[in-house]
Amino acid sequence: MEQRPAVVLLSGGLDSATAAAIARAEGFELFALTIDYGQRHRFELEAARRVARAMEVRRHVVLSVDLAQFGGSALTDAIDVPKDRDESQMNAAIPVTYVPARNTVLLSLALALAETVGAADLFLGVNAVDYSGYPDCRPEYLRAFSEMANLATKAGVEGTLRFQIHAPLIDWTKAQIIRRGEKLGVDYGLTHSCYDPDSNGRACGHCDACLLRRKGFAEAGLEDPIEYTC
Amino acid sequence: MEQRPAVVLLSGGLDSATAAAIARAEGFELFALTIDYGQRHRFELEAARRVARAMEVRRHVVLSVDLAQFGGSALTDAIDVPKDRDESQMNAAIPVTYVPARNTVLLSLALALAETVGAADLFLGVNAVDYSGYPDCRPEYLRAFSEMANLATKAGVEGTLRFQIHAPLIDWTKAQIIRRGEKLGVDYGLTHSCYDPDSNGRACGHCDACLLRRKGFAEAGLEDPIEYTC
Repeated sequence: MEQRPAVVLLSGGLDSATAAAIARAEGFELFALTIDYGQRHRFELEAARRVARAMEVRRHVVLSVDLAQFGGSALTDAIDVPKDRDESQMNAAIPVTYVPARNTVLLSLALALAETVGAADLFLGVNAVDYSGYPDCRPEYLRAFSEMANLATKAGVEGTLRFQIHAPLIDWTKAQIIRRGEKLGVDYGLTHSCYDPDSNGRACGHCDACLLRRKGFAEAGLEDPIEYTC
Repeated sequence: MEQRPAVVLLSGGLDSATAAAIARAEGFELFALTIDYGQRHRFELEAARRVARAMEVRRHVVLSVDLAQFGGSALTDAIDVPKDRDESQMNAAIPVTYVPARNTVLLSLALALAETVGAADLFLGVNAVDYSGYPDCRPEYLRAFSEMANLATKAGVEGTLRFQIHAPLIDWTKAQIIRRGEKLGVDYGLTHSCYDPDSNGRACGHCDACLLRRKGFAEAGLEDPIEYTC
């Protein structure tokens, strides 16, 4: 039987690797898309390439979109990454690491790739639990995007593809994500989460991403295979 | 009085130049965005730069997004551009010049820039008369995009900006567009429309874009200032 194609957005992080593993376990043939939007370090992209290989994707497109030309985010500008915050602080407001319209840009490009390769299904690893401050990680946003996508495209309008955004992790805790990934055989040693790694790519252990990741592994009762500077 | 900012998508063509002139006449301070999505020739980008200068935009961002990596369109692939078609042929089906999810990609990037610079208003020169075959030139698509945009962004969710997509040309004929532009002082000699120019950038006169442009000038009773090879 021929496998149905799906596009999966791979960031190099733990969540998108798990979303890819879920899509694969559901029988899809994966087209991975990684957007280099001017991140401050290259370790995320290297992780995305490792994950794509491990997932045996049919094709991995790495596309540069230099959002740093717009300014406006800690992940692309020289603003300090916050450290050692507790979860109430992380969720109190939209984080400084928010990138304007990021998921909309990512999903639009995923949609363009999906229409080109004939994939109706788009997978992404967004999560509304750990990132409750990000407007573009919420189910109502994803629904609005799907509706728009089916009006935006030749395939959607002609009815040959009915685009669907899959966000399987959206209401899972980090521990639940990690447990599911472990069962599916995800090698989390290939992934990268830290916002502020050292020059060798080792995770800082103190930014929001590291804190959430470590807590997730602890709660899942599993060991995090990556190296931390402290 | 301080001018309100607006983002305008400039392609280098006649329509987007007119949309920019309308935004300017409405009193907006313009941030122009041109996406180089792997077009087959550079004359469009040069035209966009000329138009941006003429419109005295506050900032012009030219962003490369290599959609050619995805494949799938006459404007980015080596498919032949159709010539000397009549309008019923142009409108019979979605054209081969359709680029998957093109306007969604363009608008998403415009939205990211708009949120960054604090602009609630996005102008684009889409037209549902001449391009009735393109799904992403229809009002229902633009409405769906606006709804999504206000759920997608920090500014939209917090209510500091209420994003609005302006498509002032959407139901105008080419002649109406040209007449309006002339009144607003647009120099159409700066613009480029042809899908298949010669090596000096001169318009072919026979692709859909040239045919629509020439007919528009003829119906408007005005002379097209650009040069054609025949």
